[in-house]
Parts: sequence; structure tokens; C-alpha cells
Amino acid sequence: MLIRYGVNPLSPLCNSVKGCLVASSSVLRRQQFLIRILGGSSSQTYQNRLGGIRSMAVCSVEVDAESILKAITPALESSKHKGQAGKIAVVGGCREYTGAPYFAAISALKIGADLSHVFCTKDAAPVIKGYSPELIVHPVLEESYSIRDEDKSYVSERVLAEIDKWLERFDCLVVGPGLGRDPFLLDCVSEIIKHARHSNVPVVVDGDGLFLVTNCLDLIRGYPLAVLTPNVNEYKRLIDKVLNCEVNDEEANQQVLLLAKQIGGVTILRKGKSDLISDGDIVKSVSTYGSPRRCGGQGDILSGSVAVFLSWAREQSNVAEADPSISQMNPSLLACIAASALLRKAARAAFESKRRSTLTGDIIDCLGRSLEEICPVYPS
Amino acid sequence: MLIRYGVNPLSPLCNSVKGCLVASSSVLRRQQFLIRILGGSSSQTYQNRLGGIRSMAVCSVEVDAESILKAITPALESSKHKGQAGKIAVVGGCREYTGAPYFAAISALKIGADLSHVFCTKDAAPVIKGYSPELIVHPVLEESYSIRDEDKSYVSERVLAEIDKWLERFDCLVVGPGLGRDPFLLDCVSEIIKHARHSNVPVVVDGDGLFLVTNCLDLIRGYPLAVLTPNVNEYKRLIDKVLNCEVNDEEANQQVLLLAKQIGGVTILRKGKSDLISDGDIVKSVSTYGSPRRCGGQGDILSGSVAVFLSWAREQSNVAEADPSISQMNPSLLACIAASALLRKAARAAFESKRRSTLTGDIIDCLGRSLEEICPVYPS
Repeated sequence: MLIRYGVNPLSPLCNSVKGCLVASSSVLRRQQFLIRILGGSSSQTYQNRLGGIRSMAVCSVEVDAESILKAITPALESSKHKGQAGKIAVVGGCREYTGAPYFAAISALKIGADLSHVFCTKDAAPVIKGYSPELIVHPVLEESYSIRDEDKSYVSERVLAEIDKWLERFDCLVVGPGLGRDPFLLDCVSEIIKHARHSNVPVVVDGDGLFLVTNCLDLIRGYPLAVLTPNVNEYKRLIDKVLNCEVNDEEANQQVLLLAKQIGGVTILRKGKSDLISDGDIVKSVSTYGSPRRCGGQGDILSGSVAVFLSWAREQSNVAEADPSISQMNPSLLACIAASALLRKAARAAFESKRRSTLTGDIIDCLGRSLEEICPVYPS
Repeated sequence: MLIRYGVNPLSPLCNSVKGCLVASSSVLRRQQFLIRILGGSSSQTYQNRLGGIRSMAVCSVEVDAESILKAITPALESSKHKGQAGKIAVVGGCREYTGAPYFAAISALKIGADLSHVFCTKDAAPVIKGYSPELIVHPVLEESYSIRDEDKSYVSERVLAEIDKWLERFDCLVVGPGLGRDPFLLDCVSEIIKHARHSNVPVVVDGDGLFLVTNCLDLIRGYPLAVLTPNVNEYKRLIDKVLNCEVNDEEANQQVLLLAKQIGGVTILRKGKSDLISDGDIVKSVSTYGSPRRCGGQGDILSGSVAVFLSWAREQSNVAEADPSISQMNPSLLACIAASALLRKAARAAFESKRRSTLTGDIIDCLGRSLEEICPVYPS
């Protein structure tokens, strides 16, 4: 039935035909794919979903990420005070993992945030504090092994109370780096996400945070300030859970768009050879060459970076003077594009010098220089 | 009686006569040595063992290690994802020792592995984590002092369950760096080796891991994916236990070959002025000049490096196009040769700059550059 509608109307936001899948054969293939993933068993369900799909812009446009970075990166002015360039918090770090929250939090500072906090378990805190005195590390989370069943309710309330003291001060939360999968800890983090949502604090979800929200989609469903940054396996689980099908790389743009739409307009950054980004309305991609090194931890740089850029992109004054194609774009989309492009540039710079021995710390060391090359503090 | 067989038939794999001990006097000496270590008291035992010795290749050939490094080091490609360049785990690190497992694990990353884990005791974990956020450190092992006798069985099961969650994800385990000799901990590690063996995960055994397996040879007997990397004293104990004789440097090649064969085809890397490597079929040596500095920890670099190269050498696609003398060689042998040659090159580079103050960390800092000089990421 879809076929008789011919080519789907493309969104006006898709302002270039380059890379768009408009040839009739590809349209046909795409629509067949949509039929498959929609199931099509119930005519009513099918028609309801179809209504949404008709308005989809299923082309992906490689964006001018440098223009976006320039548009959203705020000028540094002496009149500003501490905090105005961003206050970020990472929720993550447990007995097992300490590197990931550190990488996310320190990346935020290296890009230019003023303050970077980490909320982690008591075991993880001294280690993360030890990595850097620049971070503010709160040892507030608890894992099951350290508390008795009868204390769980009380401990959970205490954890939430600690977080609530800080929550509204943050411009963005990153939930997931090094979080682990302890059930009690994840229950507490579910509550933290609900509180953040209640306070309209943006939430970037990565790593074990994605494990959590994939199993409990209501935590982020319909929250436009949620950004998910899945890698290959995390994306596979999301697609399976939300669209009840497998990943289809031939129809990657449509699939990521539909995924974002189905979760209610959250933004998805699908990490891969090209990063695909969609908020359920449009799809953008970032394909600039980064590095072939796949050492663990690069995803943590990305999540910390998205948090900073999201806090910047939401400041309307930063982007007001930009080209309308930028100033009218969803800040979450802008943030993902900026973070993806910067990480790739920094990874490329680190790899140029360290080659096979490039580690995540080397890439973090290149974040500042890479951003400066695009957005010099003192433009010439 | 041996004398009438004349020169032992040399394996066709021994494709160079250079360095072979073929002069009749040396053959005589070698055979007398074999008679000694075989005991020769029982005619039947003697004949049985003789059957094995006839097929031995007892010449050692200094190999072209650079060609081997080039053959097994995989190309870096943007299409690969995290983990494909190697996932390594080190089992080691206790209250007393924390540097050794760190050196082994970080060396794996610096050579190019994507992920490097450490499984250590609870006391050691925060310290090892503190050395580098790049490692994933699991505080799962226990020493006798921290548990009651009646809890041992339960704790042992819990340790194994923790390890089993991860085991099959690893391309190689390194067992031993900084393990210590606590009896309860070593019992747990025995079980870990059995589980690794059951899952066909290669195991590199060094340091206190060699103390363990020398006392319980059945742990590795007949496991072709086991690699032992003994230093002078560890080798002495192995020879005493397995061949019931003393180390004989005049017949070093035959002895290391016989040792590997007697343990059932494990690979032995005997560290020394020249590193001698045998899998019980052939003997190879690496004698390129390294450094006269003998600071502790270099063996840990070696064991971590063997693990990475072994995971690479087992990927048939990496070596398929190499010269048959390489592509047909046992991957464990290739890995030992590559690791030995790279360590020597890195040690030489570090010593050039740091001289008497060269430390293990300085050598680790030279691993990447040394590998890049042999296997440039972008070949000219």
C-alpha cells in the first residue's frame, strides 16, 4: 500500500539533495523496509504509524560541523563568572569502573565547561578523585553488596536527597559512563533520571545508562532533552526493543529517525564509521575522518562533550546570529554534531602523533587544541 | 646406543643450517646430554622417550623477527569496531604487588589492544586503577588473610563466577604478574586456568603464575594455547621439576625444546641474553641487542606483549599472506618472537635516552614508537 504514495515528502530542513535517497528503487526499498519494521499486522496501528512516517525526512546530510561548532561555542568574556560556560555532572563510576566517568568529566572541562562533577559509588570516589583534582567527585551512590535489604529504601532516599541538592545547578547530566549494572544502583539512577526530567535538566545517556533505559524506555520516552549515544551493540539492543527488528544498514537513516521518533523525539547519536544523528524529524551525519584506533573510552569523551555543547547550544544568544539552518535546529542535534566532529578531529590529531599506541587520554589532550583551531579564542 | 643413530633427523621446519649443531662432536655431546636427562635406567622408558626425541629439531635459528612483526600486526581500518584489535586480561595484583599487573596490562594497550582488564585482589584494585584510567580493574580475588576458613568454598565460587562472566570475551589471559603466593589465591587461580582452558582462551603464564604451574603441571600439560615465559630462576625450577636435571647452557636449545615437548606442546619463552623460544617442535631465538639495564618489570611488559601478539597471530587473516615460513608457524611461537623483539627494541630506545635511570615505564613509553618504526600505520 505504501508504494502508491510514491516518494515521501522530504522535510524542507533537508536542504541539499546530495546524498538523499530519491531514486525510485531506493524509495521502494526504503518503504518496504518501513513496512517490515512496522509489522503491518493491524491496519489501524499501521495507519497510525504511517501518519508519522509521511512527514519524515529520511535523507541524511553530511553537515558543516565546523560552522555549527563556531555557532554554538560561546565567546570568552572577562565579565562572565564561574559556571556560565557550563556546569556538567556525570552519574557513573562504581567498584568496577572508574576510568569511564573520569574521561567523560575531564573531557567536559577540557572543552571549556567551568565545573564538572561526578556522582559515583563510595568505592569509586577516591580513585576518580585521584585521577584529577579538577573534578568534584561525590561518593553518594551505593551498590547492593554494601547495603542490607532492609536499608535499601532509606539509602535510596538519601541518595536522591544528595542528588537533589545539586541537580538544578547543572546544565546537563551524563548518565552511564562506568555505571555498572548493579540492580539497586540502577534503581537509584532511574529515580535520578526522573528527577532530572522533572527539573528539565538535559540528560545524555551512554554505556550502562543505555542498558537501563533500553529496559525501561518510559524513563526517557517523550523527553526531548534526552540524548542517547549508542555504540554498535547498544544500538542493536535499542532497535530490537523499540522497533522489534534487526539493524538494517542499508536503511540506516530511516531506521535511526524512526527510532528517535518512536521513543518520542529524543535525540539519537548512533556511533559508527559515520555518526548518524536524528531527533525524529531529521537525520544528519558526521563522517569526517577520525582515527582507526578503537581503544575503549572514546565513547566517554563523546558523552562528556555532548553535555557541554548541549548546554552551550541551548543558550539562544550563542546561536541567534547563526545561519537559519543552524539557529533553527534542535540544540540536541547541534550538540551531537559538534561533539562528534570535535572528537574525530582530536582523535585524528592524537593518532597522528601516537599511532597504534594512541589511548583515550591522548585524545583528551588534543581536545582543546582541536577546538581552538576551529573556534580560536582570538579570531584573526 | 644412541650413537648408532648418528645425527638426529632435523625437522624440515629448521630451514637454515646456520647455527645448527651438526658437527659430530657436538652431536655426541648432545646425545650424551639427552641420555643423562632421560635417566636411562629403564630400557623401556628410555626407548619410549627416544621415540619422541628422534623427531626433534634441535637447531635454533635466529629469526627475522621484524618480518614476523609485520606479518602478524593487523592493519588499522576505520570499519573495525572496539575490541577487534584485542581484548586482554591480566590475572594478578595483590596486597603486596601492584606494579607488575599494571605494566603488563598497559603494555597491551600501548601496543594496540583495544581493551585491557586486570583481575586482582580488593586491596590492589584502587592502586592499579589509580595508575591509569585506561585499564578496567576488577577487585575480585581474595587472599587468605581476609577470609575465614569456613567461607573459603563460598568465596572461591564467587570469584570464579565473576571471572566466568568475562572469560570468553578475552582473546588472551596473562596469569601471574604480581600474583603473590597466597595459597587460597593460588587455588582460585588454578581454577581460573582450568576455566580458561575449557573455553580455549590462550594463557600466558609468568611470575608467580609459573610458581603455581611448576608445582601443578597438569594445569597446563598438553594445552597448546599455554605460553610460559620463565626467567633464569623460574626456568631452573621448571627444568628441575619436568626434566629432573639441571639447566645445561651448552645444550640450551635441546633442553628448551624437550621441556616444551615434555609438558605436552606448550610454548616456552626462556628469557636471557638470547631469548629461546620453543613449542616442542622447533626452537627459535631472538638475540637483537636490547638494553643492559635490568630494572624489574620488563618481564611484565613481555607477558602483556605476548598476549596481544598471540591474539593477533591467531587471526589467520593477518598472517595468511606471509611467507610460508611464517604463515605455517605456531601462532604462540610467532607471538613470543614478536614480543621479544619489540621489547628489546623499546628497551634499547629507552636506554639511549635514559641510560642508568631507565625504568620500566620509560620502556613502555617507547613501545608504540618502536612498533611504528617496524610496522608503520601508513607504509611508505
